[in-house]
Amino acid sequence: MNTPFDIIAFDADDTLWHNETLFSMTQDKFQTLLARYAGAELALDTLYEIEIRNLETFGYGIKGFTLSMIEAAVELTHGQVVGQDIQQIIDFAREMLRAPVQLLDHVAELIPQLAETYTLMLITKGDLFDQESKIAQSGLADYFAHVEIVSDKRQDIYQALLRKHKIAPERFLMVGNSLRSDILPVVALGGAAVHIPYHLTWAHETVGGDAGAQQYFELEHIGLLPALLERLSDSYRAP
Amino acid sequence: MNTPFDIIAFDADDTLWHNETLFSMTQDKFQTLLARYAGAELALDTLYEIEIRNLETFGYGIKGFTLSMIEAAVELTHGQVVGQDIQQIIDFAREMLRAPVQLLDHVAELIPQLAETYTLMLITKGDLFDQESKIAQSGLADYFAHVEIVSDKRQDIYQALLRKHKIAPERFLMVGNSLRSDILPVVALGGAAVHIPYHLTWAHETVGGDAGAQQYFELEHIGLLPALLERLSDSYRAP
Repeated sequence: MNTPFDIIAFDADDTLWHNETLFSMTQDKFQTLLARYAGAELALDTLYEIEIRNLETFGYGIKGFTLSMIEAAVELTHGQVVGQDIQQIIDFAREMLRAPVQLLDHVAELIPQLAETYTLMLITKGDLFDQESKIAQSGLADYFAHVEIVSDKRQDIYQALLRKHKIAPERFLMVGNSLRSDILPVVALGGAAVHIPYHLTWAHETVGGDAGAQQYFELEHIGLLPALLERLSDSYRAP
Repeated sequence: MNTPFDIIAFDADDTLWHNETLFSMTQDKFQTLLARYAGAELALDTLYEIEIRNLETFGYGIKGFTLSMIEAAVELTHGQVVGQDIQQIIDFAREMLRAPVQLLDHVAELIPQLAETYTLMLITKGDLFDQESKIAQSGLADYFAHVEIVSDKRQDIYQALLRKHKIAPERFLMVGNSLRSDILPVVALGGAAVHIPYHLTWAHETVGGDAGAQQYFELEHIGLLPALLERLSDSYRAP
């Protein structure tokens, strides 16, 4: 088949399976746990502020998030937090890490179907151990020719991946839910991108300003991807 | 040059740079912090037991270790631990993650020298984010043709790496300080291995029983590696 792409790469969290809901549910529990010390808004604002401050040292993922929750608990209670509450927060982490992977609608059929025509790649960021476990659990691992777990999704990291796999940017399509992590850095490199928003977005992943000035596709849900690919292939003439 | 190996792979922590000393120093601080609640032996035994129990959920690395220290503090104080102590433990993690990389003796000269003759690979386990930062800081990244950060170092994981890089096991040499993680799984696959003990070994990395029944090389320090390689190359006749 005459296709405009050599590789279709997918983000994983909130693109193939639910993730932000898990963080959001845990934040709700965190806020309830600390309700006798702080109102909901203060609790969440403090947590977010500490998370962002810690990103540089702890990176993305559940374990870093948990250390930030514990720090926020110490700060919000002015050091009065009790051991039992700390233990609860660590148990939240354990629940998150053990939560079953829940695929988004359409994903279970879509990925095997696309793998018949395209070379698929998975590009995800976060804890190595946690991401590997989710990929294994998803039942989709065999459909991806390449799996790349990265510490961040910046333009230079995408560039290094394209170089490593010898992919020309214009033959690369990235599909993901985060403008900041999945779409804008790829478009900036000259690649193609399909943005499929998830119903929740972590504040850190949102972008302000002129994101709209760049060119990418936007779909309501991932089930619409095959029709888009067909349309692109029909209009594609090999140079 | 006629060499018996296509790839020489190195472990990183405690093979190229100091690592276990950092954990050991932190354990000392942990024990001092909790001295008013528990004796040194009980503190360290409890921490080790919790670490091993948590490995399956948290994996290897500083963040998982820190969550285990916090859990151990709650347990050792019967929930009486104060917020300030918890904050201290999180600050230990921050110090560990920010500690400068200290190369072992000989490494700074050895790696550039070997890279002239051999294709070098780095295989390390732990937090993705932390390992990447240490590799970047080490100043050695450019000498390694491949860098693989893995969640564990089991035989099946080495097998997958060899397959991915199309390396025949008998043309693969692994150099590392841990019998359990670097040497035995590689030897079991039919690869060659050089064991260079570090002066400290985490109890989890030690092996009992008949490890000695398997064949591998043992060196006192990494500076002796070039002489061993020369000897092996001299006696090697391409099949």
